[in-house]
Amino acid sequence: MSFRASVLTLYPEMFPGPLGLSLAGRALERGDAAIETVQIRDFAEGKHRMVDDTPSGGGAGMVLRADVLARAIDHAAPAGDPRPRLLMSPRGRPLTQGFVRELSTGQGAVIVCGRFEGVDERVIEGRGLTEVSIGDYVLSGGELAALVLLDAVIRLLPGVMGNALSGETESFETGLLEHPHYTRPAEWEGRTIPAVLTSGDHGAVERWRRAEAERLTAARRPDLLDKA
Amino acid sequence: MSFRASVLTLYPEMFPGPLGLSLAGRALERGDAAIETVQIRDFAEGKHRMVDDTPSGGGAGMVLRADVLARAIDHAAPAGDPRPRLLMSPRGRPLTQGFVRELSTGQGAVIVCGRFEGVDERVIEGRGLTEVSIGDYVLSGGELAALVLLDAVIRLLPGVMGNALSGETESFETGLLEHPHYTRPAEWEGRTIPAVLTSGDHGAVERWRRAEAERLTAARRPDLLDKA
Repeated sequence: MSFRASVLTLYPEMFPGPLGLSLAGRALERGDAAIETVQIRDFAEGKHRMVDDTPSGGGAGMVLRADVLARAIDHAAPAGDPRPRLLMSPRGRPLTQGFVRELSTGQGAVIVCGRFEGVDERVIEGRGLTEVSIGDYVLSGGELAALVLLDAVIRLLPGVMGNALSGETESFETGLLEHPHYTRPAEWEGRTIPAVLTSGDHGAVERWRRAEAERLTAARRPDLLDKA
Repeated sequence: MSFRASVLTLYPEMFPGPLGLSLAGRALERGDAAIETVQIRDFAEGKHRMVDDTPSGGGAGMVLRADVLARAIDHAAPAGDPRPRLLMSPRGRPLTQGFVRELSTGQGAVIVCGRFEGVDERVIEGRGLTEVSIGDYVLSGGELAALVLLDAVIRLLPGVMGNALSGETESFETGLLEHPHYTRPAEWEGRTIPAVLTSGDHGAVERWRRAEAERLTAARRPDLLDKA
């Protein structure tokens, strides 16, 4: 069973976008993952196919209509579809590597990309959407957020990363930021590689890396240490 | 003076990608912002143009070489270039709306996109790169992170958002998550719009929105209230 994403958007041409290349591109080509897009506008009615309307109570921007979005969701994920239904939104649950890993073991996801000022609250409730945020900033729409989530998930799917080990020592997987990396040349602009790394003492290398990861995390992200 | 981004990447074809459409696409077309890409591989030497090498001390993955990346950076941002130099990396300073706003008032940014296991630490130090993270998860490369940062910045540039007010009541700008939105129809699947929003009492609407924003933030992101 491969990972299947259905992305509801007003900009289907943004997909697979950057995911069509490199690691994710090869995974999509092999069929380890699939991304289908659903054009929300196809579910609008009337001559003008309006998907949005002015906010109740006034204010700037436009709001995506509940009825239009619900029809698009019901088309993409009929009753019984086991995939989680996500709405990319800055109000959502922060995306973490743990949630990414959880998604990567499932059958896929239905991902709604908001635009404009927001989405009518009633469709979030009525269709059980889980709001997910990729970070504490505001984007022009949910599409880039969906691409980020999909990239993070796809690289964890079985067989996608060339070296399975590569995923396990990264930032967040150990609860720490990753230690510094070095490679050839041995000296560059007067800067050398820490001697321990070329000592051949594997135990010492491991201890150094762990200590560096702890030092970096304490300096930059003490909040991560509190959680761990 | 418009915002000019120089993106250093092994995948220049990922740019402008999704930013070529919609709000950012129109801004790029008008020249309010410009994105130029620099292919890091063009600065590699030797027959095989190797940009990476195995990590000192052993382990999985490959590390971007300091010398190659430094040449690419020196080409993109010669001495005196006032733009901040950013490296997209999960180890970095978390991207916030405040930092986005700060970038949007500047002349642009030089953005290095990592790939593989990481970047040789010496080039981060030697070229004064600021590591920036878009969230606590791992991507297959820095390109999507760069696109996210650029989208967030470009929408704040003067003249890009149709309604300037639209930016000010959003999530994070007030220190709170945004209140719920509603629009027509008045009733959908038995769900109605909160009466206060159709009361015509603007003061009451404002009070309701503020209370809802506080309620949502307390329930979902108490960490934001601690900061405010």
